[in-house]
Amino acid sequence: MEVKVVRNVLDVNAKMAAENRRFFAENGIFVLNVMSSPGSGKTTILEKTLTRIMPEIQSAVIVGDICTTNDADRLSISGAPVVQINTDEFGGDCHLAAHVIENAARQIDLAGLDLLIVENVGNLVCPAEFDIGEDARVVVLSVAEGEDKSVKYPLMFRECQACLLNKTDLLPYLDYDLEKARQYIDQVHPGMSVFETSAKTGEGLDSWISWIRERVAEKAGLQQQA
Amino acid sequence: MEVKVVRNVLDVNAKMAAENRRFFAENGIFVLNVMSSPGSGKTTILEKTLTRIMPEIQSAVIVGDICTTNDADRLSISGAPVVQINTDEFGGDCHLAAHVIENAARQIDLAGLDLLIVENVGNLVCPAEFDIGEDARVVVLSVAEGEDKSVKYPLMFRECQACLLNKTDLLPYLDYDLEKARQYIDQVHPGMSVFETSAKTGEGLDSWISWIRERVAEKAGLQQQA
Repeated sequence: MEVKVVRNVLDVNAKMAAENRRFFAENGIFVLNVMSSPGSGKTTILEKTLTRIMPEIQSAVIVGDICTTNDADRLSISGAPVVQINTDEFGGDCHLAAHVIENAARQIDLAGLDLLIVENVGNLVCPAEFDIGEDARVVVLSVAEGEDKSVKYPLMFRECQACLLNKTDLLPYLDYDLEKARQYIDQVHPGMSVFETSAKTGEGLDSWISWIRERVAEKAGLQQQA
Repeated sequence: MEVKVVRNVLDVNAKMAAENRRFFAENGIFVLNVMSSPGSGKTTILEKTLTRIMPEIQSAVIVGDICTTNDADRLSISGAPVVQINTDEFGGDCHLAAHVIENAARQIDLAGLDLLIVENVGNLVCPAEFDIGEDARVVVLSVAEGEDKSVKYPLMFRECQACLLNKTDLLPYLDYDLEKARQYIDQVHPGMSVFETSAKTGEGLDSWISWIRERVAEKAGLQQQA
């Protein structure tokens, strides 16, 4: 019975996600769903990313946490409009669902927006099951988490187009085998784009930012053709 | 509707958990539920802990992961019987439920057992909602995850009796404020036991192991009185 109900919840979510996707496409907005374990450094990654792509790429952020506005406070510094969702207000949800994104997007002025980044709740399991109407999904993994996370949480890695191996500044102090981590990722999702980054030092952010630029430009181009 | 169903699932789980608790108490087994984000180092903590308490404290482990038997393979070295649960076999569950623990416990020879450790699925959200019939709950937090996890994931910290701030060997290379992390924890759960540990170097494990010893002895004493 539990499985049937979960299936139903996911079906309802899929419909809402399709509506979101249509809406964002009509407005030429590229939507990026950024997921990770707690404390992988995704907020710092996004702070640095926004500082470098704004105002050329007009961006906004929806950030999900169970509690606190810590992340929204940090992201606001970039100048991008930020909407904080606290899932504690509706039961402490472990993920962001499509209808939550729809509500949050209403609070943002979408005119002229190129990129909407959704920073999901820190959780390597449940968010991967919920389509929110995004164009691409990215998983951020701190190298302090060990090499085997892709094989232990395969759905997340199958569902994402790109992976950031973050906190590479810690590599000299860890017994971490980058090659092994990449092999595990390739085993779960062959051909996945993998970026080695340190949000702290800024190392490796160039190729990640190029990856975003290409996709935002492509989406804007598609809207102009339509 | 979704909320009502979730409530129902939790009610069924609570009943099963009460049965587990009665069963473990009759057998004088102390049950410890160990939870954390992915990659906090809980398997290494448990490896080192088991090596030090075995065979004096007869221990067994139930370890939950969505996929792989990596953790069970590592824990087996300690000589403790280990049962690996892969939640991928029943939908990729993000937590261990009471009935799953009951099934797993059947695969272990419980005669003479003092301590059953459950290493839960790496997830700082959902496992906190599921009582499995344990005597105590512990959350392991890697210092690489940042100081604010307790305020961002308050249920987990309210539900646990102790917190291990792990990977302290990385502190010299992080901008991590231990005092601030402790203040945040105290804000969410005043008086919570906090241990600073490095599973890698073994630093700080003494007081953590004393904490376990006291509780196992107390449980065995209660059984003898009954």
